Amino acid sequence: MRFTVTYRLFAGSSDQAGQRAADIALEQTVEIPRDVVPKGYVEDVILGKVESVKLEAEGRYTAIISYSADSVGGELPQLLNVMFGNTSIQTGVKMMDFQLGPQLQAQFPGPSFGIKGLRERLHRPTGPLIAPVLKPQGSSADTLAEIAYRCVLGGADVIKDDHGLTNQSMAPFKERCEKITAAVARANRETGGHAAYFPNVAGHSEQLMEFARFASDVGAGGLLLMPGLFGFDLVRRLAADKKINLPLMTHPSFLGPYVLSPETGFSHAMMFGALQRLAGADISVFPNVGGRFGFSEEECQSIATACRDPQGLGRTMFPSPGGGMSVERAGDMHRMYGEDVVYLLGGSLLRYGSRIGEGIRDMRAELAKQIV
Amino acid sequence: MRFTVTYRLFAGSSDQAGQRAADIALEQTVEIPRDVVPKGYVEDVILGKVESVKLEAEGRYTAIISYSADSVGGELPQLLNVMFGNTSIQTGVKMMDFQLGPQLQAQFPGPSFGIKGLRERLHRPTGPLIAPVLKPQGSSADTLAEIAYRCVLGGADVIKDDHGLTNQSMAPFKERCEKITAAVARANRETGGHAAYFPNVAGHSEQLMEFARFASDVGAGGLLLMPGLFGFDLVRRLAADKKINLPLMTHPSFLGPYVLSPETGFSHAMMFGALQRLAGADISVFPNVGGRFGFSEEECQSIATACRDPQGLGRTMFPSPGGGMSVERAGDMHRMYGEDVVYLLGGSLLRYGSRIGEGIRDMRAELAKQIV
Repeated sequence: MRFTVTYRLFAGSSDQAGQRAADIALEQTVEIPRDVVPKGYVEDVILGKVESVKLEAEGRYTAIISYSADSVGGELPQLLNVMFGNTSIQTGVKMMDFQLGPQLQAQFPGPSFGIKGLRERLHRPTGPLIAPVLKPQGSSADTLAEIAYRCVLGGADVIKDDHGLTNQSMAPFKERCEKITAAVARANRETGGHAAYFPNVAGHSEQLMEFARFASDVGAGGLLLMPGLFGFDLVRRLAADKKINLPLMTHPSFLGPYVLSPETGFSHAMMFGALQRLAGADISVFPNVGGRFGFSEEECQSIATACRDPQGLGRTMFPSPGGGMSVERAGDMHRMYGEDVVYLLGGSLLRYGSRIGEGIRDMRAELAKQIV
Repeated sequence: MRFTVTYRLFAGSSDQAGQRAADIALEQTVEIPRDVVPKGYVEDVILGKVESVKLEAEGRYTAIISYSADSVGGELPQLLNVMFGNTSIQTGVKMMDFQLGPQLQAQFPGPSFGIKGLRERLHRPTGPLIAPVLKPQGSSADTLAEIAYRCVLGGADVIKDDHGLTNQSMAPFKERCEKITAAVARANRETGGHAAYFPNVAGHSEQLMEFARFASDVGAGGLLLMPGLFGFDLVRRLAADKKINLPLMTHPSFLGPYVLSPETGFSHAMMFGALQRLAGADISVFPNVGGRFGFSEEECQSIATACRDPQGLGRTMFPSPGGGMSVERAGDMHRMYGEDVVYLLGGSLLRYGSRIGEGIRDMRAELAKQIV
């Protein structure tokens, strides 16, 4: 069984693009000169095959290369390694898409909950989800728990840690997790709601599974993960863990360089959509257009499409644009993202001070107006 | 205690550069607007401080920002998160350097063996080290072991797995590790040498520590790791493991986009020198000038300098240029890298066929001629 990867190549002619594609097929598999590739299994099966090279626009080509599932074995890191390991170090090539085929798809089922599963857990069958972020780093667990409590009273669906809250002494993971989970539960009892707290699972890599189990045991509603710092396989591993059994939200920290150059790395849709979904994330956070980062409306749209594409791998997942959201922009955002979206509300919410719940309430009311 | 990070900023004026630096100081710590940063500890200690912004060249500035060790806690992923997590998603900023200061330096000691320790283990007190790569993917463990055996007879110092050999059924990790270690030991007995095999520790993330222990138990001489796929903390964790106690070689797979854009990501010296050293690698592999990748001579030199800088963090480590090496280029390479270097010899060595040992011998002889 073979799977395919689609690359965008920047080349001066179709001959050059064809040569480039053949070089990638070698580089990503046998990594030896073509003339010494052993006959038989290695040449016939393992060596990547250029399936097609087509002109996309002047100087730009689309190449599809197929690889054997044997090259991957059973593991996500090796799947990524075959797709783009060494080729990531070359310019003039961007990874745009992949199709796993039935064999690998059975090994990589994607999100465990997805949009539908998460909506059920949160009892929010329709409309955008609202997710305030607990900040700033340096606050005590009690302070953060108090903010979380007020946000849930205000109607938040998801309360997430700032990605900069890890295991520092000001608010160590377990203390923070316990206190905030308790605060969210208390607010849920008062409102009759089902808001979920997503603590940021971060520390030494050897602590992460223990932290995730702890979060599950004390009643967290999901987990925030940083694949750029801990590897995509952490997401896969936690998505597959039916004992921990929590929805996963991924954060883009340390992943920027993969998308910022037009002629290297991944498309935005691949990095913040398809790859997150492949790993098993239920919600993918990315920097929203109009915030402090430079993603364009088109790039943000492409991410949302990849997250929600019914033809994509496994269950559809939530795109989660971070930054750039305000009551004033709610209409524009709704036209852009529609209903299946998780809006992160960041630092500007702190301007409400102890009335932070009102910020959530205002946003909810404004978004409700958009749905006719 | 504070540590500093040096960024290169691309800005139109010194005012813009100053604003940019202040924005980074916020982004990397509290991640909230400046006007809502809480007074006291958060503002005084946690908030990043712009220490200096200097003009480097037209449109280019050097900014030094200090952060509190409290922001990091004790973990490497969070250190990287503070240094460059969200800022990695912005353009016009490149991370160029860091200075940990005594507190964090005690937590991050760097390489366990370094150049001196590795030379002692390999009984190669002077001269460049030669490291053939076992390939191609798709070969059986027996075939790879036979190649390893011949390479050691030919005088190789380090035998490394191709980074595409993980845990596939053609040569599963444990079988490969056992057979190649045995083949290297047999050859060492015949030559009286001390060549070391570095298996590629890759599979599901939850298998890696078991694989590393297995490698240590059967007598592997080191470990190959891919921080781009598994996270830098795997390197730190294995460097700190005194029971496994093996030298570590890191491979650049999946790390390319961090260096390929001039105005984002890291400098080459940071990514393939300083960060690898910080994590605890003893040998850092990077694509050599003149091979299949586009690194310039200057970029390769800067990596080698960062690996071997006596003022760098902890022990000095080996730069390991891969590709582009041949008997014909030995003189040029020697003038470029000097003695403290590990030369990877890749696929072209397979052209020697069963006389692959001669390829190693020829290279050794040629390199010996360079040392007067």
